[in-house]
Amino acid sequence: MSLSEIKAIVFDAYGTLLNVSSIDQLLNDFFDKKGAAIAKIWRQKQLEYTWLRTLMNRYQDFNTVTVDALSFACQQAQVTLSPEQRDALMEAYDRLSVYKDVHPALEHLSKHFRLAVLSNANPEMLEAALSYNSVPQFLEVLISVDETRHFKPYPEVYRLAEQKLAIPAEQILFISSNTWDVAGAKSFGLKVAWVNRFEGYIEELGFQPDLIITDLEGLIQ
Amino acid sequence: MSLSEIKAIVFDAYGTLLNVSSIDQLLNDFFDKKGAAIAKIWRQKQLEYTWLRTLMNRYQDFNTVTVDALSFACQQAQVTLSPEQRDALMEAYDRLSVYKDVHPALEHLSKHFRLAVLSNANPEMLEAALSYNSVPQFLEVLISVDETRHFKPYPEVYRLAEQKLAIPAEQILFISSNTWDVAGAKSFGLKVAWVNRFEGYIEELGFQPDLIITDLEGLIQ
Repeated sequence: MSLSEIKAIVFDAYGTLLNVSSIDQLLNDFFDKKGAAIAKIWRQKQLEYTWLRTLMNRYQDFNTVTVDALSFACQQAQVTLSPEQRDALMEAYDRLSVYKDVHPALEHLSKHFRLAVLSNANPEMLEAALSYNSVPQFLEVLISVDETRHFKPYPEVYRLAEQKLAIPAEQILFISSNTWDVAGAKSFGLKVAWVNRFEGYIEELGFQPDLIITDLEGLIQ
Repeated sequence: MSLSEIKAIVFDAYGTLLNVSSIDQLLNDFFDKKGAAIAKIWRQKQLEYTWLRTLMNRYQDFNTVTVDALSFACQQAQVTLSPEQRDALMEAYDRLSVYKDVHPALEHLSKHFRLAVLSNANPEMLEAALSYNSVPQFLEVLISVDETRHFKPYPEVYRLAEQKLAIPAEQILFISSNTWDVAGAKSFGLKVAWVNRFEGYIEELGFQPDLIITDLEGLIQ
């Protein structure tokens, strides 16, 4: 794929910039051997609830969905989640770390492209986690799905990138580590690079990324 | 919950009437120790693809989604799926067995209520699997989501039950073992019973079933 027509690069946040597994230590501290199982269920249910609430037309913001998914995960793992533990975990979600390739890549790319983030997170949550990692300095805009009251991969959500940057989809390169997000963005019409951070496989949804990289440094050619 | 206002009972098919694990033996025959892992990924991806395709507005029928999910599962499990194995597994999907409580319950309930099935499956697939188990004799109508070109839990899909039976949602009891389907049907406005066949937990999506039973004989009071 040639980047010559690309004017802006738009990043997914969780899993792409922010390392969600940086919360696992706290889960282990709270729930001992069950921490890893809870982390896995929590992430899966968080995703499922964004999809299901959008399908059901019952939007609640990402903070609510994340708390609900945590509650479910603890129930299924048969552990009691105290209000203090819940609050501590949600605060930790605002202090996730970024992957080590993020800063060098954003610093370099910001000299050549307009940069933005497009995330399922509500604005407060997104701003908190990215500011904690000094990411906004490289970005023109933080875009949250919240104003559409739908989550990815609903097409209207990806349209926000066009609208906020005021350029057409084919001039935007969207970057995500989430395979279903790659399919959704490509289906909408964005150019898409898949950051295959986890040795995953492309979803059988009929859409291929334009570019596959293993980390963000792969964007710097 | 009183059943006095209920005129019709509408059943989900896969997992509720049809035992999807009845295909596991064939998966074990083909893929040995990896059969169980493939079964698990296959089911999860099948669901995810119905949700994601509906969200992306890229409907393909349940047969296609099921084949695609099988392909993904085999790829992730790093086994090669031959065309013959794929065809054999999809044929086995048309010959899933029903749970042992299904026939006694449907026979009894059919004397007191109008009965129907509302399923994600396309009509051919649904008809094949239910006819193989002599289920349609108890049913007034087989309802497939296919004509809406959306999958559950999209609200329009549950509206089909109202439309095909020509009675209002509050006179219909919907029965599903799938927790997300329970939430979707309840969110739409149907009365809902959850068949908790797998010792599961209610989803944290803001909707509770009207009734919880462990198998369909629990409906016969």
